[in-house]
Amino acid sequence: MKAKTLKGTRDFLPEQIAKRKYIFGIIEDVFKKYAFSQIETPAMEEMSTLSGKYGEEGDKLLFKILNNGDFLEKADEKALLEKDSFKLAPTIAKRGLRYDLTVPFARFVVNNQNDLVFPFKRYQIQPVWRADRPQRGRYQEFYQCDADVVGSDGLLYEAELVQIYHEVFKKLGIGVQIKINNRKVLFGLAEAAGIADKFVDMTIAIDKLDKIGKEGVEKELSERGVSLESTEKIFKMLEVTHFEDLRPFFNEGSEGIKGLDELKQVYDFISCTQIKNLVFDVKLARGLGYYTGCIFEVAVDTHIHEGFVMGSIGGGGRYDNLTSSFGLPNMSGVGISFGAERIFDVLTELNLFPPNVESKSSIVLMAMDQNSLVYAFQVASTLRDQGLNVDIYPESGKLKKQIKYAVDKGVKYAGIIGDQEVADQVVMCKNLETGEQRALGLEDLMSVISRG
Amino acid sequence: MKAKTLKGTRDFLPEQIAKRKYIFGIIEDVFKKYAFSQIETPAMEEMSTLSGKYGEEGDKLLFKILNNGDFLEKADEKALLEKDSFKLAPTIAKRGLRYDLTVPFARFVVNNQNDLVFPFKRYQIQPVWRADRPQRGRYQEFYQCDADVVGSDGLLYEAELVQIYHEVFKKLGIGVQIKINNRKVLFGLAEAAGIADKFVDMTIAIDKLDKIGKEGVEKELSERGVSLESTEKIFKMLEVTHFEDLRPFFNEGSEGIKGLDELKQVYDFISCTQIKNLVFDVKLARGLGYYTGCIFEVAVDTHIHEGFVMGSIGGGGRYDNLTSSFGLPNMSGVGISFGAERIFDVLTELNLFPPNVESKSSIVLMAMDQNSLVYAFQVASTLRDQGLNVDIYPESGKLKKQIKYAVDKGVKYAGIIGDQEVADQVVMCKNLETGEQRALGLEDLMSVISRG
Repeated sequence: MKAKTLKGTRDFLPEQIAKRKYIFGIIEDVFKKYAFSQIETPAMEEMSTLSGKYGEEGDKLLFKILNNGDFLEKADEKALLEKDSFKLAPTIAKRGLRYDLTVPFARFVVNNQNDLVFPFKRYQIQPVWRADRPQRGRYQEFYQCDADVVGSDGLLYEAELVQIYHEVFKKLGIGVQIKINNRKVLFGLAEAAGIADKFVDMTIAIDKLDKIGKEGVEKELSERGVSLESTEKIFKMLEVTHFEDLRPFFNEGSEGIKGLDELKQVYDFISCTQIKNLVFDVKLARGLGYYTGCIFEVAVDTHIHEGFVMGSIGGGGRYDNLTSSFGLPNMSGVGISFGAERIFDVLTELNLFPPNVESKSSIVLMAMDQNSLVYAFQVASTLRDQGLNVDIYPESGKLKKQIKYAVDKGVKYAGIIGDQEVADQVVMCKNLETGEQRALGLEDLMSVISRG
Repeated sequence: MKAKTLKGTRDFLPEQIAKRKYIFGIIEDVFKKYAFSQIETPAMEEMSTLSGKYGEEGDKLLFKILNNGDFLEKADEKALLEKDSFKLAPTIAKRGLRYDLTVPFARFVVNNQNDLVFPFKRYQIQPVWRADRPQRGRYQEFYQCDADVVGSDGLLYEAELVQIYHEVFKKLGIGVQIKINNRKVLFGLAEAAGIADKFVDMTIAIDKLDKIGKEGVEKELSERGVSLESTEKIFKMLEVTHFEDLRPFFNEGSEGIKGLDELKQVYDFISCTQIKNLVFDVKLARGLGYYTGCIFEVAVDTHIHEGFVMGSIGGGGRYDNLTSSFGLPNMSGVGISFGAERIFDVLTELNLFPPNVESKSSIVLMAMDQNSLVYAFQVASTLRDQGLNVDIYPESGKLKKQIKYAVDKGVKYAGIIGDQEVADQVVMCKNLETGEQRALGLEDLMSVISRG
């Protein structure tokens, strides 16, 4: 019988858990300082809650849960006869696994609106599931880590989210660039180039700039009917590095100007902080998304971590209609996401995890005989009463085997106990790194092992 | 469009999350002191890993995940034609959601055996899924919280697990009885009554004693062919309150004597601790289970919490063959489980959650105009740099609305900022409980709000 995890899923061993908790712990502490509260939603949602929210491709990647019992009883007869999986699925699977944290959050807000105080600042750290083809760094089950505020369009929140990004990555020791743009500015570009009707096409093309280069984008725009003149104007605007330099391109009262004003407000807040790594990037488009205002993306700063290549490790933005598909309109929201799995990889590759991230016991008590084992158990109880993390080998005798256990676990001290130690009420404390050993009373033992 | 959670699943709001984390935090701290390490396994497992592990009833309660894409392509033709859901399921759903933490742990041990040091002490706190009919207190998605050691039959671990139960419930403020028995002792009962061949029947009957009473058990045993004489002998033995009093009933070298010796060893360890609530209960049977040695169950002590009725809030025991179904024999293990959902209910009903379990911000900063809002943002940044949890209302003006926000969130102070405060570099700190207000410089403000 094989005992493997499914492809695209992983076991987490103690050291990995400790490292993941280190990341989530830092993020959570910062979320809390900014008055975000944690919520959790169920892994399983109604398929009707999930379907149609992630586009056609997304729908295909939803994991659906087979109805229990005689599920074929209520199955679509025609779909069954025609062996039409696509049509049959909704009639035999009413539940699905959550695909992200955003849609469940929207459902949560509508569901619990009477128990929430708005603006509602929430964070959520939970696994999500996607039936993507598994490959290196891409999993079918992975954690997402989001913070969102709903119920206000105040741009102060954009500034706070920038602060959160800044503080978290500073604490993690990762040098980053926090890129910012605004969807209205992108629309302004399209307007100024006279292709407001091709805004989506333009956004999709710009989003690919990194991948297909300027010529590729030009070709794509041309294929979509954008004139050469318009394309040139767009590229001229894409060269801008200070957002205020776009103002001359836009008409008064236009969407573009609104976008610039929003960016200015965010920068006004940020200018009274120490933050120097908020970078305006007119080329930042964040895919199609549902964003309507400011958008963010975080990348490892390759000036600080030279030659380090990694996709974005965070992203987010403002959306005007998070909850409208659940019947609650006019709920403006803004949120960010931390790419926890990638952050784990960055910390690993840059060797940035602190040395003792896993809080191990620093001693294993070892008994030479059954009588000593009872004494060792007493010693362990006393040390643990002082809050110390203590391990004890469960069987007496065979010192070699016991020492091997401690060494394999990377524990620093062996606390050996035999007849003599029981009689003297001491523990023979052996440093497994140096080989030194000393008989210590409990008080001394405590101070040695609490030093770690 | 409805926005409900599925029946049997729940959203957790911030206060509930804080309370759940309080429980898990206490349990985790104790687990760590006893040198248990945390692992996590995926929610999704191969159906072949899960099937056949929980009996026929359990199999029916497994949530199965529909294969992605054209799942009917590889479906069993015959089962499809005959509309045989039971036969069809394995051919269209190869994944399932974990049903408990024990089977995934067994799979984990076998899967990762080369990376683990044995005896391996692990704990795991994750949700599990069961297609049970939802009802009050019974969910389809709920958390389990387990600690197990595998790779040793040392009874020291039984004693440590008793200590863990004792310490956790002491810290939670719940008075409990930790009941202990031993499967070998139960077998000894059957042997002594001359019905060793009916051991399972006897165990099942004894397990129902609380529910169906003595007469019910007598009737059930009689129906299963146990003679009146045997039944009387069993009941005589069931009256014993000290396990040593069973010794005269058992033959030397029998299983029963082994069980008593095991219990004695555990009590020898526990006798050198302060633990007074480990109670031998010969009637404790722990269902059918896979237990082979000591078994445990924790119940709220109704002498301490008078008249409080609640099922067991923890249970566990020793099993000899956790991993054999995954091809790794001779791995003795022992483990306990905390009934986290029930513990939550006990703490709620007994009003035992600490008052400020949710760490809220103690101040909401409020600005009278846009200029003040930028200053308020600066103040917030300064306070947060000191590690304080601070909230700030995102829009200036309308003080009434801002105060309402703070009051609804149960925040103690409003930090009001207008022209005058900006000019004086102070914050008008209003106690929302008493109505008192004072203009405070940042230093003073900090000390006021850090007092909470």
